[in-house]
Amino acid sequence: MTILEDAKTGLSKEIKKAADKEDLRPEKVSKLISKGKLVIPHNNRGNSDIVPVGQGASTKVNANIGSSPENVSLEKEIRKARIADEYSDTLMDLSTGGNLDSIRENILNNVNIPVGTVPIYQAVKEIERPEYMKKEDIFKVIEKHARDGVDFVTLHSAITMNVLENLNEEDRVMDIVSRGGAIMAAWMIRNNKENPLYSEFDKILEIAHEYDLTISIGDSLRSGCIRDANDRLMIQEYLEIGRLVQKSRKKGVQTIVEGPGHIPIDKIRTNIKLIKEATDEAPLYVLGPLVSDRGVGYDHITSAIGSAIAGYHGADFLCYVTPKEHLSIPAPEDVKKGIIASKISADAIDLANRNENSKEKNQKMAKARNNLNWEKQFDLAILDQEELGKKLEEDKVCKSEYCSMCGNFCSLKLTEEYLEDL
Amino acid sequence: MTILEDAKTGLSKEIKKAADKEDLRPEKVSKLISKGKLVIPHNNRGNSDIVPVGQGASTKVNANIGSSPENVSLEKEIRKARIADEYSDTLMDLSTGGNLDSIRENILNNVNIPVGTVPIYQAVKEIERPEYMKKEDIFKVIEKHARDGVDFVTLHSAITMNVLENLNEEDRVMDIVSRGGAIMAAWMIRNNKENPLYSEFDKILEIAHEYDLTISIGDSLRSGCIRDANDRLMIQEYLEIGRLVQKSRKKGVQTIVEGPGHIPIDKIRTNIKLIKEATDEAPLYVLGPLVSDRGVGYDHITSAIGSAIAGYHGADFLCYVTPKEHLSIPAPEDVKKGIIASKISADAIDLANRNENSKEKNQKMAKARNNLNWEKQFDLAILDQEELGKKLEEDKVCKSEYCSMCGNFCSLKLTEEYLEDL
Repeated sequence: MTILEDAKTGLSKEIKKAADKEDLRPEKVSKLISKGKLVIPHNNRGNSDIVPVGQGASTKVNANIGSSPENVSLEKEIRKARIADEYSDTLMDLSTGGNLDSIRENILNNVNIPVGTVPIYQAVKEIERPEYMKKEDIFKVIEKHARDGVDFVTLHSAITMNVLENLNEEDRVMDIVSRGGAIMAAWMIRNNKENPLYSEFDKILEIAHEYDLTISIGDSLRSGCIRDANDRLMIQEYLEIGRLVQKSRKKGVQTIVEGPGHIPIDKIRTNIKLIKEATDEAPLYVLGPLVSDRGVGYDHITSAIGSAIAGYHGADFLCYVTPKEHLSIPAPEDVKKGIIASKISADAIDLANRNENSKEKNQKMAKARNNLNWEKQFDLAILDQEELGKKLEEDKVCKSEYCSMCGNFCSLKLTEEYLEDL
Repeated sequence: MTILEDAKTGLSKEIKKAADKEDLRPEKVSKLISKGKLVIPHNNRGNSDIVPVGQGASTKVNANIGSSPENVSLEKEIRKARIADEYSDTLMDLSTGGNLDSIRENILNNVNIPVGTVPIYQAVKEIERPEYMKKEDIFKVIEKHARDGVDFVTLHSAITMNVLENLNEEDRVMDIVSRGGAIMAAWMIRNNKENPLYSEFDKILEIAHEYDLTISIGDSLRSGCIRDANDRLMIQEYLEIGRLVQKSRKKGVQTIVEGPGHIPIDKIRTNIKLIKEATDEAPLYVLGPLVSDRGVGYDHITSAIGSAIAGYHGADFLCYVTPKEHLSIPAPEDVKKGIIASKISADAIDLANRNENSKEKNQKMAKARNNLNWEKQFDLAILDQEELGKKLEEDKVCKSEYCSMCGNFCSLKLTEEYLEDL
């Protein structure tokens, strides 16, 4: 029985833990999971955290780590994984360089948070050119990842021949910016055959069902720039994604869906509402969206803006973006910066959605600030208390009475002194 | 004749320059200025940039600099001013420590962008305790700043006795977080008299009219935490702000109004629409809003999220927030980080508002990215091309063929190779 199947019949231990974590009634969690609107990623390695993603749950953050052919360091990936484990809710190992099995194994051994992968990266790495991939090899890699203890896999199943054929008709500036999507398109074009991740989706569902693996359906045609946002290709793919979600749910396989990309602020709401409609409210995982193409070097900020707006309109799961986006593989310090920016978005979303836990923490922070209690403020900060403490030391700025920003003109101090006479 | 009065009768040279800068018809600029929906800050020093703020214009960014009693360094303030002059649209000198006249003079001599101040800071500094300020001294400081060549002054005119009396009735966590607002409240409480910036607003308008100084009406009761957002006090003050705007316009004085503060995402739209209604669409200058109280150490990001949403709903002018917000006076590097975050917001807002100039730059960026043209991407980046160039060098990541993020699995490279066979 998978978690989804369990949810239809009663309250499993995962459901109870999830309800406890999110401060929800277990019956509600069970109902949401049974309808596919909430998932609890599950793995074969046993010891990972319960991280509910979707409706009713607090907003979650994912950190992408992993090597590339020109940037392989097991030690660095382990460091990144540990940072993600400490600060993020989940991580994805997107390695494409070095010994992928070893990197994945090491990451899995170093974290408790759920781990996702993109099996196609390993499938293509072993044969170098996309068109040489064999269907069976793709399925083997998916199964290997599930067996190794991965919680969720991204599969670019929704880029079908039908979708691809429309690509030439559309006047896109950036055709395909999804790495996995480009690999599948290359395979389809050279072999002149339907995407096997689509045509043999039932086979994939069997594997996923066996290991109770969560599927994350990738959006290969996500907009890679503002100009291409919400175009017909993207929307057509959303409809395909929706059909695959329906199949997954019937099979009892937990499924989430992936969103954009680069979207201007005025188009985010439509985008999010549309994919939520098309997928009958599957948990939505967004990469950004980035609200400008021109934030290069600071795309953790461009993304924090977009993801906060997307989350307010319904996105459940924020894939972080680091300052190195569009430039290179993030270093460990970039991983931290990316997680912090996304965590800020996530808290802002939870506040907007009236999450009680978030409201309470923010009120405590406001009180600590009003009382000029610096230590407590650092404890309640979204993250990186250690660095904040260091800033405090370096700048010698925060005194019990007031801070150096306003000095003796501190509004809080003035207010305390004078307002009692009001 | 002030710029506002000029706009009622014809097309002054400032209006023509503003139209040119914003790619608008001069007649439209003239109409917007005459109605008070757009302002062109003007000064007595002669040589500053034309920076239109308000309806029809692109979104502008302000950087707050200035000393505090515990943090006085003329050299640092000049450095900050130069950074602001290079990257920001305007700056405010909020100095409260050291020789304020000398700091202001040096800042004015080092920049071409419009400069704002808060005269009350100097008025109170000279006598140390708020309640000892004399009305005449306040007006003298305002006039001195205007004469020295300041473009706009923030005046906390809308915290009236009526507003203040309601403070005890409301259950605020943070009563007054505005420094200028707290100073005026202290004066009013101890002297048991109406706020002179309100009761003698006509006198202020005379000075402003003489120097064609732009007034920025401060929001003393802005919410200092999520919990206090959009409460009755804040809204009552907005109504007072609106009445003062009406007076200013009648007198031919350009006026902008200040907004919050800390506001959760779900309340930003209401806040912005309300203040725009209450002020008959005066140009709106927002400090943040911060969408979580818990971003301490990273409030340039918390603020970038809020200001992007506020700008999408109508805010015109973004006061940056630095990573040092709530902690201490920003160092020069914090000033840069704050400006970058706000500039990203501003570009996202302009894109959402279909600003042609912003759309064009973003499309060029998308094309440069698609062509893997790194130099051009750095040229088109929102800012800090120099630092981006350095990153390129350090990481040895960007090759003409692809970047090290995906290496040979670069989606752009794959797409280029395979899609021609589609």
